[in-house]
Amino acid sequence: MAHVNATRGAGLLSPDGPANDQQAHPLDEDLGAEVHRELTAFLKSKRNEAAQIDPQFVAAVDSLSDFVLGGGKRLRPTFAWWGWRGAGGSPTDPEARAVLRAVSSLELIQACALVHDDLMDDSTTRRGAPTVHVDFSARHRAAGWLGTPERFGAATAILLGDIALAWADDMLRGAELWPDQLGRAHTVWQAMRTELLAGQYLDMLTQARGDETPETALQIDRYKTAAYTVERPLHLGAAIAGADPALVGAYRRFGADIGVAFQLRDDLLGMFGDPEVTGKPAGDDLREGKRTLLVAYGLRNADALRHTAAADLLRGAIGDPQVDEDTVTEIRELLIELGAVAEVEHRITELTNAALDSLCAANLAEPAAARLTKLAAQATRRTL
Amino acid sequence: MAHVNATRGAGLLSPDGPANDQQAHPLDEDLGAEVHRELTAFLKSKRNEAAQIDPQFVAAVDSLSDFVLGGGKRLRPTFAWWGWRGAGGSPTDPEARAVLRAVSSLELIQACALVHDDLMDDSTTRRGAPTVHVDFSARHRAAGWLGTPERFGAATAILLGDIALAWADDMLRGAELWPDQLGRAHTVWQAMRTELLAGQYLDMLTQARGDETPETALQIDRYKTAAYTVERPLHLGAAIAGADPALVGAYRRFGADIGVAFQLRDDLLGMFGDPEVTGKPAGDDLREGKRTLLVAYGLRNADALRHTAAADLLRGAIGDPQVDEDTVTEIRELLIELGAVAEVEHRITELTNAALDSLCAANLAEPAAARLTKLAAQATRRTL
Repeated sequence: MAHVNATRGAGLLSPDGPANDQQAHPLDEDLGAEVHRELTAFLKSKRNEAAQIDPQFVAAVDSLSDFVLGGGKRLRPTFAWWGWRGAGGSPTDPEARAVLRAVSSLELIQACALVHDDLMDDSTTRRGAPTVHVDFSARHRAAGWLGTPERFGAATAILLGDIALAWADDMLRGAELWPDQLGRAHTVWQAMRTELLAGQYLDMLTQARGDETPETALQIDRYKTAAYTVERPLHLGAAIAGADPALVGAYRRFGADIGVAFQLRDDLLGMFGDPEVTGKPAGDDLREGKRTLLVAYGLRNADALRHTAAADLLRGAIGDPQVDEDTVTEIRELLIELGAVAEVEHRITELTNAALDSLCAANLAEPAAARLTKLAAQATRRTL
Repeated sequence: MAHVNATRGAGLLSPDGPANDQQAHPLDEDLGAEVHRELTAFLKSKRNEAAQIDPQFVAAVDSLSDFVLGGGKRLRPTFAWWGWRGAGGSPTDPEARAVLRAVSSLELIQACALVHDDLMDDSTTRRGAPTVHVDFSARHRAAGWLGTPERFGAATAILLGDIALAWADDMLRGAELWPDQLGRAHTVWQAMRTELLAGQYLDMLTQARGDETPETALQIDRYKTAAYTVERPLHLGAAIAGADPALVGAYRRFGADIGVAFQLRDDLLGMFGDPEVTGKPAGDDLREGKRTLLVAYGLRNADALRHTAAADLLRGAIGDPQVDEDTVTEIRELLIELGAVAEVEHRITELTNAALDSLCAANLAEPAAARLTKLAAQATRRTL
């Protein structure tokens, strides 16, 4: 079993195969599948609870389960796991399974963030499928129910997001960490949730105010993505392990830098990536009015170069849901021509290098150092 | 100080004055003000956290604080407090302050429920003021920001509700209960949150499906109101105190009955109450498409009596946001004429009596028994 899993996981996380690691372990080698297993078990227990309340509630819970189990790169649990491993945790420790459960709960916070975000942005597609509010609008329409399908879809998405947020907490608490581990974990957890929600609020406010400075774009990336995708998950793992402040500091610097680099890569993929791979139509960020660093650089450079036509085209497209494929293609070429793409690529390289320096200085035990280095590369590389 | 508070609180919670209680204590006598004080302190600490993230985030936090501190009857913390007191807790116990903080956190769950509910129902007024999404839509409009005011208002309400839900948890955990108390409290807390969200989902689904049976109306009242307003708060207090299963059972029966009675009274007030007192326009439940027990009885009786005109008027009004004052007046008279009001009143009386029987059988120590009896009367009486 261990051998099979190790072989299966090798291609995903360890380029040179498990032979490089002295003690290949299924929890390390097949982490994504293990996270999936824990989420499946947790959601099954919640489904039973739901059935006792009302059978009609089960359909909603099943939809949330499908969403949680249907995809995602499990980035946050993965960073948290390796944060714990790098701080001295071992997959052979008696509490390893509890730690795995605890870090898996991050996927439920992510489910809340995505479901609510998709509703706020009125995104239609997520992971290649209809978003939750779109799905439930369609169910309402098909059933010919009372009221408007849009209102029903929106209300269901609000409630399913709330349920995911509440259950994230239930899963963390039910993970069976030791009380001191849970206490330390919860401090990080609390900070992370507030930072995520603050980041989402600032993102929305920035879109509304039309703030197009690179500084603001970076501030949002810092909270909405970096803190909550890399920095705090690593910190969470470290806290569970009882890491010393020096390691926590190194993790947080690494996480903040890699997290922003990850968001910048995501912004580029959103504009230039293959919709078949990203699961979202190209240019959706633009239509939704997101002022990414890429767009902020583009606008700043267009203004500096007095390239009025480019600036007008770009400003006109941001937040316009009707922007067509041809316009997206034109804007792509403009962003390259204006040097914005090169600047973002440069920034990603700088941030990734700084992050790896922080990691190096932390003198982590292997295999954690190698794995985090690899994760950094995966999160910021040019293809998904 | 104790004397002043005791005298001030006497008119609110103890009709015969504190002389009836052998040990009048400020935490008992002035509970609403003490809950307010704890919420104020907690939200102030969160405001400091928010300011460190981004000054722009503070405005959102202030709006949430105004909402939480601006009103409400503090029913849930009050039931939880007396649940703890009746199970042996004393305001002179060293942990009394921690218990007060823990039960105050229920107001933050309530804030989430109200903010999200108002958005889902598109209610315009709450506690006599604009609802959160309406308020932020107006701010957007006044500032002339980009995008639509409605979308900005909705997104802010979603995020502020999420923040309230997350912070409820932070406040419970930060209350400084003993670990065993917190562990027991959390089991109840988890069940309560799921029941609340399930109740909200069922409520919405019922509106959409047009299910107008009294059984469904009661099922929603059971979860959306009773479990979460009375039954689980009492259970939470009992769990903190480490109450035995017999007392927990008595509390839960009392809470389920009084909670449903409370919702039925609220339904009647929503149709017949003074908007100046309720803070909501009369007939709003009707416009929002709520199928209350009152309406369910009205429809059932109209059908049974073959009073087609009445049934048509009522069915036509449910979920019609345009229903005017005259129609509401007409429907009021119909609901009386059809016997629906009398039936609901009868049900309230039955439930209240059953609840008081459960309480009586529990043999609670005074003053908890007297206080819970009084709370039951307050929650179900004819005026607010």
